[in-house]
Amino acid sequence: MDLRSFFCPRSVAIFGAPWATGQAGLGILTSMIRGGYEGAIYPINQDGGEVAGIASYPDLRSIGEIPQLVVIALPVDSVKPVVQKCADLGVKAAVIITSGFTESGSEGSALEGSIVRIARSKGLRIIGPNCIGIMMPHCRLNASFAGEMPEPGGIGYFSESDSILASAVDIARAQRLGFSRLFSIGNKADTDELDFIDALGADSETRVIAGYLETIEDGDAFIQRAEKISRTKPILLIKSGVTKAGAQATSSHTGRMAGTENAYECVFERAGVIRCDSIQRQFDYARAFASQPLPKGPRVAVIANAGGAGIMAVDAIEREGLELAGFSEETQQHLAARLGTGIHIQNPLDLPDDALADRFETALEAMIDDPGVDAILVVLSPHVITECANAAEAVVRAASMKGDKPVLACFLGAQRVQEAVGILRGSHVPEYETPERAIAAIKAMVGYQRWRSRPKRVVKLFPVNKHKVERIINRQLKNRNTQLGEVYSKEILQAYGFLTPKGQLTTSSEQAVNIAEQIGYPIVMKIWSPQIIHKTEIGGVSVGISNRGDLIDAYDLMMYRIPKRFPEADIIGVFIEKMQTEGVEFILGMNRDPLFGPLLMFGMGGKFVDVLEDFAFYPAPITADEAKEMLLSTRTYRLLHDAGGETDRTQTLDIDAISEGLQRLSQLVTEFPQIKEIDINPYIVGSYGSAPIVVDAMMTLETP
Amino acid sequence: MDLRSFFCPRSVAIFGAPWATGQAGLGILTSMIRGGYEGAIYPINQDGGEVAGIASYPDLRSIGEIPQLVVIALPVDSVKPVVQKCADLGVKAAVIITSGFTESGSEGSALEGSIVRIARSKGLRIIGPNCIGIMMPHCRLNASFAGEMPEPGGIGYFSESDSILASAVDIARAQRLGFSRLFSIGNKADTDELDFIDALGADSETRVIAGYLETIEDGDAFIQRAEKISRTKPILLIKSGVTKAGAQATSSHTGRMAGTENAYECVFERAGVIRCDSIQRQFDYARAFASQPLPKGPRVAVIANAGGAGIMAVDAIEREGLELAGFSEETQQHLAARLGTGIHIQNPLDLPDDALADRFETALEAMIDDPGVDAILVVLSPHVITECANAAEAVVRAASMKGDKPVLACFLGAQRVQEAVGILRGSHVPEYETPERAIAAIKAMVGYQRWRSRPKRVVKLFPVNKHKVERIINRQLKNRNTQLGEVYSKEILQAYGFLTPKGQLTTSSEQAVNIAEQIGYPIVMKIWSPQIIHKTEIGGVSVGISNRGDLIDAYDLMMYRIPKRFPEADIIGVFIEKMQTEGVEFILGMNRDPLFGPLLMFGMGGKFVDVLEDFAFYPAPITADEAKEMLLSTRTYRLLHDAGGETDRTQTLDIDAISEGLQRLSQLVTEFPQIKEIDINPYIVGSYGSAPIVVDAMMTLETP
Repeated sequence: MDLRSFFCPRSVAIFGAPWATGQAGLGILTSMIRGGYEGAIYPINQDGGEVAGIASYPDLRSIGEIPQLVVIALPVDSVKPVVQKCADLGVKAAVIITSGFTESGSEGSALEGSIVRIARSKGLRIIGPNCIGIMMPHCRLNASFAGEMPEPGGIGYFSESDSILASAVDIARAQRLGFSRLFSIGNKADTDELDFIDALGADSETRVIAGYLETIEDGDAFIQRAEKISRTKPILLIKSGVTKAGAQATSSHTGRMAGTENAYECVFERAGVIRCDSIQRQFDYARAFASQPLPKGPRVAVIANAGGAGIMAVDAIEREGLELAGFSEETQQHLAARLGTGIHIQNPLDLPDDALADRFETALEAMIDDPGVDAILVVLSPHVITECANAAEAVVRAASMKGDKPVLACFLGAQRVQEAVGILRGSHVPEYETPERAIAAIKAMVGYQRWRSRPKRVVKLFPVNKHKVERIINRQLKNRNTQLGEVYSKEILQAYGFLTPKGQLTTSSEQAVNIAEQIGYPIVMKIWSPQIIHKTEIGGVSVGISNRGDLIDAYDLMMYRIPKRFPEADIIGVFIEKMQTEGVEFILGMNRDPLFGPLLMFGMGGKFVDVLEDFAFYPAPITADEAKEMLLSTRTYRLLHDAGGETDRTQTLDIDAISEGLQRLSQLVTEFPQIKEIDINPYIVGSYGSAPIVVDAMMTLETP
Repeated sequence: MDLRSFFCPRSVAIFGAPWATGQAGLGILTSMIRGGYEGAIYPINQDGGEVAGIASYPDLRSIGEIPQLVVIALPVDSVKPVVQKCADLGVKAAVIITSGFTESGSEGSALEGSIVRIARSKGLRIIGPNCIGIMMPHCRLNASFAGEMPEPGGIGYFSESDSILASAVDIARAQRLGFSRLFSIGNKADTDELDFIDALGADSETRVIAGYLETIEDGDAFIQRAEKISRTKPILLIKSGVTKAGAQATSSHTGRMAGTENAYECVFERAGVIRCDSIQRQFDYARAFASQPLPKGPRVAVIANAGGAGIMAVDAIEREGLELAGFSEETQQHLAARLGTGIHIQNPLDLPDDALADRFETALEAMIDDPGVDAILVVLSPHVITECANAAEAVVRAASMKGDKPVLACFLGAQRVQEAVGILRGSHVPEYETPERAIAAIKAMVGYQRWRSRPKRVVKLFPVNKHKVERIINRQLKNRNTQLGEVYSKEILQAYGFLTPKGQLTTSSEQAVNIAEQIGYPIVMKIWSPQIIHKTEIGGVSVGISNRGDLIDAYDLMMYRIPKRFPEADIIGVFIEKMQTEGVEFILGMNRDPLFGPLLMFGMGGKFVDVLEDFAFYPAPITADEAKEMLLSTRTYRLLHDAGGETDRTQTLDIDAISEGLQRLSQLVTEFPQIKEIDINPYIVGSYGSAPIVVDAMMTLETP
């Protein structure tokens, strides 16, 4: 049961009562007539007669066939009986325009729920309610209020905001972007973003999936299914309300909680979804993805008829982290011979101002043939003597020659390049207003291609002591304790294969000295109290104790101070622990996002945690490759890689220990949804051969 | 002698021979006629007769008056005699279109030089050569090949790239941006970017200065003069070829060296220049600056007729670091009473989809009156029932009501908002294609306003021992030594009031022990050799030596190792120095940019230097305020401010010591242009009352 019934129905019934005064039904009907829909249109009108010049029917049954699509634009109270009739009759697809459901309060929500139940019991799929309809340009079906239909093409679009859809449609028409299907998804009562992603993913007319979302309903399912579809088609999403202030606005707009910036960032990365922060960017990318093959790598060649714009393209290539392609010996000789003297064969290739069209064509062909070039940008400025339209035609000819490399264009101007831009857009060569925007589109393609060529995901399962963790967690939850301090946290981590420093609990300074002498100085002393989670802040940690006298002093000071500073704490004793003097401090952590579940974190440890802004997040479960990618994506890695002239630490530092730590953490939080937060800080990693150590840790459990 | 002669000449003579075949002269003449220029036009044609329907003159003298402007579009060999005649006759302004000068090699360069000398000797100012002319929309003078003239308005534009100018003009016309003057500045033989910035700065028709530059001729003068003009008018510059790859492209395009990213960034910041990375961004900003008052602060109010676009605006506000304005009690009550029920009075203010124009007007007026709002963005999406044009008119009315707060608009669409956008643009309400671009423009205005309200710059001069530094530098340069190691660098810094740790040079381990016992353990031992600049890398530094035995071991190890590792080094001895155990490590530095001179650097010291990417740069000489701004602009400052739960170090750490260190360094490098590079790393700063210490330093001198 999918959404194909909505794609190109051969007949559409419209409920629009009261037809005489109701704007909604008449609006849809008018859109359909103006759009040139060639299937059968059945306005349903109890009173009979014609509506907008079309014969109406008193009810569904009197039509004589089961309409393939029903559009319902009735007052809210009349919707449910009509849905019931559609369901009973065997209608498979309905769009409900009407508002006044979940978005208006609990009564509307209950009504919406009952409608969905009716529909699902009979295999009727519903889009909406509270939406502005759908458009199917390939079969000229415009059953919407979203304006006039864009051209048919390869972009499938869905929008949770009616106004964004209306704007997007208007902009798409002006830019001659081609669409396969457009959906206003409204309250997502029966069909949500995942249904649309699935449907567009399976749709042969759709090459690119694009959408605007304010909420995501099911984080886990989103990851799984978006990732699956991304393997074959790019998904370009605007997710608004992601920043802090934005989330407030979303929340007052939809009454639902929005996720956080980091969560969306890493989840989209995992699922291969390309995030866009504006319609402009989304359309810029969609234009390229819909018409061009993916580049095999990041090496871009630029052909320009003018220094200025060419240099700006090169600046953008560098800013985006792409590479300027070098030309092969063969290309250089070929171009030198064909282009004539006075033209330096280099990248960017500066053609003379006059930009004779055949020169553009020669240059472009040579670059398409050069194996050192992955993508090509043609930049043209309209000099008085520039043959803009001829150049555009030459670009179109050359670009369609082979079709195994993306060719993008920027004809920098307005009226003077209008004809040329028309030629390019009409022939599916993506054209951009500025070189910067074209380069950004290439960057998006390169990133997507890289994602697609990832190795297969294999999540490793380590042998662990799951029962022990179960026992600890259950006991704590029974005691209504959700804050686990160092001792319990370390026990849990030990059960999952993490190592902790040698150490022991004690309640007297004499015993402390005995323990210290057993494990050897220097040692660290830490207060142990179930109430004290952040030990350092209240003086509950003493580091670098190197002899007996200092140890006794430190013990006495702690026993004097802590009860004064934190009178409500039950002090069980102090923990005497071997101090780790070698290795690099990292932080490993987990935070359970309300939408996407456990997100693993990696970063530099110690006091730099809060400043470096150098975390990497990734949703669990994680693979070994992904864990290493997390590490590689941080500046911290560069620190290790090139630590101010010293040896390259990445050669000696046990990077695999970090990856393994993240994978074990991933397994722990996947197997124990009761754990809400984990901080392992510091996680000390030395060189290969030495074991990584959890020096301190804390966890928070979900309130049962 | 300024460039006003070019602004609105009452008569223009054009040299365009051969008129019959030459495109250039005829092109200019045609542009002038089509542009509707109303002054006198004198084509100069040896053969007499009419040119393009206008009576020609055999030479300048035969005109009977001295033309206020001469445009020269002759073959390169004929230019010099004509310039001579112009100069002799007392012409004050000439535009030379002709190419084949400096850009074509040394012969052309010499010719260009001789022409400039002729002109300057007689007070003739020249624009070009190798340019495409000028446009003066206010007096309908289009003496260019740059296309049809844009509307008259407040933006003054100059471009070093002909193609960028041609594109910019074309785009400006399509967007109905208004311009005061436009200059193609070509080879900048007599007049360069500073002349144009000055001229536009003094021009009453110009409200905003905008330009495209590939090179800056004189860095020092640029800073001084751009800063002066920025105080009254915003300067929006595209400087291309700034990134590494871009600089290569510039270099092959113009044969001149381009500066680096950091240099431009900090110099533009100092001079108040607003840097733009694309024409799109430059025009987005120019549109706002040209028509709107500056916002007094960062608090933005958003009015939208649609949730989606409003949320996207709020997301952008957060991303740009602006604030969402809160409404006063009065505004809230007023709006609640006037807008009717069902509208939540909050920011963004969501008006119903229908966006009745009077609601927009009411809301906008209330926000203009609210003292808690600094800038307003109106966002509209074209629903079927939206009164777009009426809403635009309402926005125009309200926006022009008071005029003390910027009002920007985004009517998100294309054809359906076309009329509305026309109304807005025609009435100088800046309108943007997406909310994100409008918010970026507000951000630029807020930043500029902040820059304008800086306190007056006062550079402090410290009493220093300049003679001592002179002696050290002269002696080193005499010995052809340009690499100063720790010892000389510290002597120089001491002379400028920096403190260094107690310490002494020695050549034996016995003496080393004596010195250490005098100054007290722990100590640091460092190799002293003129050839060894980077001591750590070759084992020439031993830190944390805490007793006699370790000291002797460290000495012997160094004396054994260094000659093996660095045989060509003359080892003078080792330096025994008190080890600094308190305080925070910073790096202070200076790099002399080839264009902009000495740039000071501040950052976190130690091994984090290379990773944090957390430097601040600023051109010397620096003020105390600017030095503190450098500190505040780094993440390092946040580290100090909130170091993981510990006390706020910024309360105790001697921030003024950092500022003073930067100021003293500034004075040193300003007074000694022979110094090319300085690294003070680490510069250890403790709490107020303890003196900051230069623990290590190195300098490079300019090769004499």
